[in-house]
Amino acid sequence: MSRSGQRTASLAELAELVGGTVVGDDNVRVQRVAPIHLAGEQDITFVSNPKYVSALTATRASAVILRPDLEYAGNVPQIVTADPYLAFAKVLTFLNVNAPVSAGIVATAHVAETATIAEGVTVSAGCYVGDNVQIGKGSYLHPGVVLLDNVVVGADCLLYPGVVVREECRIGDRVILQPNAVIGSDGFGFAPDGEGYFKIPQVGIVVIEDDVEIGACSCVDRAAMGQTLIKKGTKIDNLVQIGHNVEVGQNTIMVSHTAIAGSTVIGNHCVFGGQSGAVGHIKIGDNVTVVARGGVSTSVDSHQYLAGFPIMPHKDWLKVSSSINKLPELRKEVNRLSKKIEELENRMKES
Amino acid sequence: MSRSGQRTASLAELAELVGGTVVGDDNVRVQRVAPIHLAGEQDITFVSNPKYVSALTATRASAVILRPDLEYAGNVPQIVTADPYLAFAKVLTFLNVNAPVSAGIVATAHVAETATIAEGVTVSAGCYVGDNVQIGKGSYLHPGVVLLDNVVVGADCLLYPGVVVREECRIGDRVILQPNAVIGSDGFGFAPDGEGYFKIPQVGIVVIEDDVEIGACSCVDRAAMGQTLIKKGTKIDNLVQIGHNVEVGQNTIMVSHTAIAGSTVIGNHCVFGGQSGAVGHIKIGDNVTVVARGGVSTSVDSHQYLAGFPIMPHKDWLKVSSSINKLPELRKEVNRLSKKIEELENRMKES
Amino acid sequence: MSRSGQRTASLAELAELVGGTVVGDDNVRVQRVAPIHLAGEQDITFVSNPKYVSALTATRASAVILRPDLEYAGNVPQIVTADPYLAFAKVLTFLNVNAPVSAGIVATAHVAETATIAEGVTVSAGCYVGDNVQIGKGSYLHPGVVLLDNVVVGADCLLYPGVVVREECRIGDRVILQPNAVIGSDGFGFAPDGEGYFKIPQVGIVVIEDDVEIGACSCVDRAAMGQTLIKKGTKIDNLVQIGHNVEVGQNTIMVSHTAIAGSTVIGNHCVFGGQSGAVGHIKIGDNVTVVARGGVSTSVDSHQYLAGFPIMPHKDWLKVSSSINKLPELRKEVNRLSKKIEELENRMKES
Repeated sequence: MSRSGQRTASLAELAELVGGTVVGDDNVRVQRVAPIHLAGEQDITFVSNPKYVSALTATRASAVILRPDLEYAGNVPQIVTADPYLAFAKVLTFLNVNAPVSAGIVATAHVAETATIAEGVTVSAGCYVGDNVQIGKGSYLHPGVVLLDNVVVGADCLLYPGVVVREECRIGDRVILQPNAVIGSDGFGFAPDGEGYFKIPQVGIVVIEDDVEIGACSCVDRAAMGQTLIKKGTKIDNLVQIGHNVEVGQNTIMVSHTAIAGSTVIGNHCVFGGQSGAVGHIKIGDNVTVVARGGVSTSVDSHQYLAGFPIMPHKDWLKVSSSINKLPELRKEVNRLSKKIEELENRMKES
Repeated sequence: MSRSGQRTASLAELAELVGGTVVGDDNVRVQRVAPIHLAGEQDITFVSNPKYVSALTATRASAVILRPDLEYAGNVPQIVTADPYLAFAKVLTFLNVNAPVSAGIVATAHVAETATIAEGVTVSAGCYVGDNVQIGKGSYLHPGVVLLDNVVVGADCLLYPGVVVREECRIGDRVILQPNAVIGSDGFGFAPDGEGYFKIPQVGIVVIEDDVEIGACSCVDRAAMGQTLIKKGTKIDNLVQIGHNVEVGQNTIMVSHTAIAGSTVIGNHCVFGGQSGAVGHIKIGDNVTVVARGGVSTSVDSHQYLAGFPIMPHKDWLKVSSSINKLPELRKEVNRLSKKIEELENRMKES
Repeated sequence: MSRSGQRTASLAELAELVGGTVVGDDNVRVQRVAPIHLAGEQDITFVSNPKYVSALTATRASAVILRPDLEYAGNVPQIVTADPYLAFAKVLTFLNVNAPVSAGIVATAHVAETATIAEGVTVSAGCYVGDNVQIGKGSYLHPGVVLLDNVVVGADCLLYPGVVVREECRIGDRVILQPNAVIGSDGFGFAPDGEGYFKIPQVGIVVIEDDVEIGACSCVDRAAMGQTLIKKGTKIDNLVQIGHNVEVGQNTIMVSHTAIAGSTVIGNHCVFGGQSGAVGHIKIGDNVTVVARGGVSTSVDSHQYLAGFPIMPHKDWLKVSSSINKLPELRKEVNRLSKKIEELENRMKES
């Protein structure tokens, strides 16, 4: 693999890319994106937060991406757009061209004769592509990727070193699998058999739809029967566990160390914070946010913002969490009141 | 690797396999196991729960596995057995024949001349088998498995892609290691040495007994001295951490993201739920269940059902967890009572 | 790889190694380190804890490492030193010689022509070394290590099987990366874009300084821009997540399943217990200890000993954690007091 170098662009080109308009000289060319205080010649920077507008007077950037409502009277040429953060991401992508250049199928890779490899696919050294595997146009397998028999990988996927996709699993288009991610490991299912356990064969698969990203060392287990499903656009961080027969909706976010137990169904546009989790066999609606470390143990409706373990509305959790460290003094206070009441009762009896 | 296809079986054969009896035509042949509402021609389904018996009237399955005490008067041929779930697992295993067919030692694998490889072993492309490694009859190494020097692997093991077993470690018979599992990484031991730390060499090993399964990206650290031990029949899920010199008993279950710190000894038939943990240097008895997220920080006796952090009996945890979100109102109530008492005291003084 | 065998040493040699003095015959030779009750002929043991001194009367060890203030009158020859535990670690390291013997660059490894490999480096079977990679003197790559383009690895590093270091990242000298560790995976950054998310290219790198150790299946994400930094001497256990642009100070310890979110800065000599964590964009001072499961959600000053979630001083956490399971009875008590007060009020009205 060899990444092509950075390229330059004029503000006119970039404004078109992000759907913005240029204020100032649209022939100015930039080469890099940089934070406002580090930017220099040929750098473009961006401001989303009004409090950083004043910092622009001191910047040495060649251009800035700015929101239309931010008042700025300096001479740095601007690209004005409603969402400078998104524009920044798009400009950064454009300037860095980080798609690796295709290197074809390296001779030292193992590719089964029955595999179907489309145009422009890279299969690097040490990769293994099993029987009847299909890989779509432009996908890139870094060194040491293993695709077992009958796996289907779509177009323009990026599979980093050490990724394993087990037999029969299906990966959509433009999917990114970070290093050592595992797709299709056996679900965790055993039937008690006297003293021990009898393994329940996991004969289902994993289906990963388009535009999903799965983090390093994350694991998505294959279904017992049927499929484990990660829907379009969902982004999963490192070291996340997805149990068998789980269904994760579209455009959902899961941060590191999240664990979703078997057969749970999660909606669209959810967010799971770091070290959060959900038990098995529940249903979580759309637009549910579970803050870091939240643990969901019953089904929850859509449009909720939750935290804690046991799980509760986040606003309640804020109160609870500010009460927890006052628990010892609360106990003392209750003891004090108990004695007061006894005294009062005694005095009443006397009177 | 090439999995052989599914096969069919008569009810007579399957009844013998699971130790059940046939009610109806025992020549009926089935090919697949399917859930009751999805089953069709040539499928066998199973019912453990009385409430699903009525669903059998509508099923299109060719046969059903049933408990003897469940009353069912329909015409679907039955296999009657005391544990339909276990029978289901056995039938599914039989019909799917998921043991891969041996492919021998592939030329592109690295196998040391001093390694001893039994009959029927598969060593796939990209595997590394070090000096003096022994691999027992019928074991299957998927692509990219690494066994460092002096490792011993028993018979009929299944090692998935990316598994690493470090030097000297010993794996029993019928052990399954899911993709990217790591056996024998260094235990985490350092001696303070002025400003920094001096690494304590981890010169022990890991011993994994027969019929153990270790999940994807799970790590079992080698002992500082002596051995880390996972006993017969224990099943460990994905992303679990087992520290150095830990001993896990027989037929114990550990769900994803569990972490057991160094030198802790765990008994037989325990269950650790997801994201649970135990500190180091403690002893946990037999038949101890630690519910998801439970954190054990002192030794515990056998036959307990525990939850929470700090750990407590599960029945206490249910009460505690239903009290936690009422903590803010409890504080308010205590404040209210405090004022009331002050008022009462003042009135008493006046009177 | 072939480890050279164990060697023997005289007490005179070992005393010099650890900076101690010999009491008894300094020509006695030992070969192994063993715990006091297991030690036999040719073994050396050590005693740090006064309560084990008496056990020395029964030991069959050939020598013992002892603190100068421990009173011992037996005949076992001694090495007397202020820190027997550190001395034990040094003696164990010396006797085990666990540095693997260089095996050179194996023909079946993929090494780019543009890579620069110093003397005494081992590149094992199935490794991949990309364009312009530099590897320093004496470093050892076990089978299946992948270093993508422009990676720099220092001298005397030990990279275990399945380690992945992505493009541009920089590893110092004497760094140890346990199996399947991932350095330089993409940071988790996305900009909302209508219904879905637009990936923010992660164009920064990871810098790992000298004498760092990273555990099995741990992940250190590359920076969005700039660098994620792990400073000199820091030791990270298995399955730990370090987010993009995090900075971890020198000689800091992180136990298994710890997760540090993006852009957080951690000082020197910190300790993070197992399953602990820190949110993003905060600053944690020097010499901060976060006990197992502690969750840090705001910046904290140096020299603190913290626990719990929400985080609090450990001494407070001890009180809180001993109060949590008394919460249900506390609620009952408050109810009882409430009724008492009502009674008192009613009686007052009557009187």
